[in-house]
Amino acid sequence: MKRHRLFTPGPTTVPESVLLEMAQPVIHHRTEEFIAIASEVFQNLKYVFQTENDVFILASSGTGAMEAAVVNLLSPGDKVIAISAGKFGERWVSLTKAYGCQVKVLEWEWGKHFAMDVLTESLEKEPQTKAVFSTLCETSTGTAFDVEQMGKIVSRYKETVLVVDAISSLGAVPCKTDEWQLDVVVTGSQKALMLPPGLSFISLSPRAWSLVENSRMPKFYFDLRKYKKVLEKNDFPFTMAVSLVVGLRQSLDLIREKGLEKIWQEHSLRAEATRQALKSMGLKLFSESPSDAVTAVWLPEGIDGEKLVREVRKKYGISIAGGQDQVKGKIVRISHLGWQDEFDVLTAIEALATGLLQMGWQVPVGEAVDRACRVLFS
Amino acid sequence: MKRHRLFTPGPTTVPESVLLEMAQPVIHHRTEEFIAIASEVFQNLKYVFQTENDVFILASSGTGAMEAAVVNLLSPGDKVIAISAGKFGERWVSLTKAYGCQVKVLEWEWGKHFAMDVLTESLEKEPQTKAVFSTLCETSTGTAFDVEQMGKIVSRYKETVLVVDAISSLGAVPCKTDEWQLDVVVTGSQKALMLPPGLSFISLSPRAWSLVENSRMPKFYFDLRKYKKVLEKNDFPFTMAVSLVVGLRQSLDLIREKGLEKIWQEHSLRAEATRQALKSMGLKLFSESPSDAVTAVWLPEGIDGEKLVREVRKKYGISIAGGQDQVKGKIVRISHLGWQDEFDVLTAIEALATGLLQMGWQVPVGEAVDRACRVLFS
Repeated sequence: MKRHRLFTPGPTTVPESVLLEMAQPVIHHRTEEFIAIASEVFQNLKYVFQTENDVFILASSGTGAMEAAVVNLLSPGDKVIAISAGKFGERWVSLTKAYGCQVKVLEWEWGKHFAMDVLTESLEKEPQTKAVFSTLCETSTGTAFDVEQMGKIVSRYKETVLVVDAISSLGAVPCKTDEWQLDVVVTGSQKALMLPPGLSFISLSPRAWSLVENSRMPKFYFDLRKYKKVLEKNDFPFTMAVSLVVGLRQSLDLIREKGLEKIWQEHSLRAEATRQALKSMGLKLFSESPSDAVTAVWLPEGIDGEKLVREVRKKYGISIAGGQDQVKGKIVRISHLGWQDEFDVLTAIEALATGLLQMGWQVPVGEAVDRACRVLFS
Repeated sequence: MKRHRLFTPGPTTVPESVLLEMAQPVIHHRTEEFIAIASEVFQNLKYVFQTENDVFILASSGTGAMEAAVVNLLSPGDKVIAISAGKFGERWVSLTKAYGCQVKVLEWEWGKHFAMDVLTESLEKEPQTKAVFSTLCETSTGTAFDVEQMGKIVSRYKETVLVVDAISSLGAVPCKTDEWQLDVVVTGSQKALMLPPGLSFISLSPRAWSLVENSRMPKFYFDLRKYKKVLEKNDFPFTMAVSLVVGLRQSLDLIREKGLEKIWQEHSLRAEATRQALKSMGLKLFSESPSDAVTAVWLPEGIDGEKLVREVRKKYGISIAGGQDQVKGKIVRISHLGWQDEFDVLTAIEALATGLLQMGWQVPVGEAVDRACRVLFS
């Protein structure tokens, strides 16, 4: 009878109407019925990506779409820049290295505001750079990166494309692919798109496509030329994860119905309410540039974050996320992603406060809730 | 109100109990609850694969697991042999070529019985061959390959591994990984495992692992060393498609409950009943070595197979598969995979017969059903 609530930055809560759509009998992927669904989904993905570019669907986790970016754009030995300020920035580094690129790593302290000059200087020093890899929201630290500004900088270099990992934030915070000149944008299904994990998505600008045509990287499953070839027919080169796409149609319908502007606004409000509540609890935010997708917060000295997360989940069925790698046990992260309302935000705050109280740390729960309410219901 | 029935060789019908399991609220992939499910699933996969080797789960279509075999076992320039007698044999050829292997293609006429001598001779001529790629059931032609015999031949070469694409047949027909010395076996979720598409599986023998350690192929998402590293903890290196794994637990439970021997027997009976019925309708089987997973049959001269498949689906909601590539429009294929009983077999036969009748070809429907019943209910 225990309730389960997800405040992890993926997977996130899937609306019941989406779960029930996916529980319908499976349909074949090469039927008129499924092709009509795929067609609708491809259109709505363009809306969510804010782009006129093609958006491709892959049956894989988000990392699959990140790999697709690397193997389709580049060739072995290519010079690239990767901004690394967290676990997912690091993934761009590992990925491009695994494929033999020469990676200039712009290592940046976790949670700190990224100074755009560093990127400008690196590009000036190495104008032969083929691609710049960044994240929109670094999930491991709850930090937002100004990819709009990066778009302005990178687009000055005609031979360089900007690749953005928007996995934990597309659909939650503004990501204006075309307007901001983001050549490649990657996301996953289990975040703001309110689906279970298993699908990933990638959009490519015409400039990015010109790189694809010259790429000499070996590839097959993630070879986007194969996907492009059948896209016009709303088809896929390999058997698609049909039940997830059927769910996606429903979740994208929900997003269109509410409208992206409103959804961004709501995420922003939920994040601000959480931040204010946490501050009123005497906690310090981990990030200097907090993202509205996920909030990371330092725990008080002596509180074991791993234990806190475990206890809150075990006792109350409420999942918040701990820290990873260098901040393991030291921070917790609360996601604002996807299908949440004001009372869910309060629940997350109350759960964290209760967990801390039970570990002996005095928290003014009511005051925190009060602060959050003033933001949420103003 | 229309009923929908799948007789395609993937996706296949998913039992309601599996659909409903997957419609439960999504759980986080790094919780005790999910790890317990994963642990059960990994154990039961060994049973279905008939192996003591590790079986890995990938979030991808079956082709992803095929690619995992290629990029983990081999290095650029390696000599390999690929048996190509249909669309999926061809996939091994394209895949190994895409990754720069030297491929000796054993091209074989679609649907014909594969002469094992050809493999023996090729290996004798080129003992430096690193891997032999075959299919267990070539889905595009409904043809069974004697991979047991291949295991005997290939295992004589200490430097060569046998890789089997069992995507459309593992769990439907015998595939005794360890007993038959199949070094690598690959399958997908949407066939005999009675799940929607989106997961693939791969097992590796110790001999195959020794190749993995020396492979110089670039890889990341399909890098099995990453999966192996966390397997002991029943974890995955990338966010797993949790809802599909939750469904898999249920479908593997169903399989264990009935038992593989009984399931193989039932597939065999369904296939035999279908073959006899088709013959009594005056139709000729496409394959000389028909698989019990899927039956391919020539259509009478002048019957447009594409239209037949389309009409039967449109009018009656019944999906049978057409031919692909060189046999497009000339054959149809009826799957016996997964969750079917005797009356489903009769339905498939009746649907094909009715479709043919309506296209002007005289078919003795009753006689066909009679023949099938004698096999099914004897």
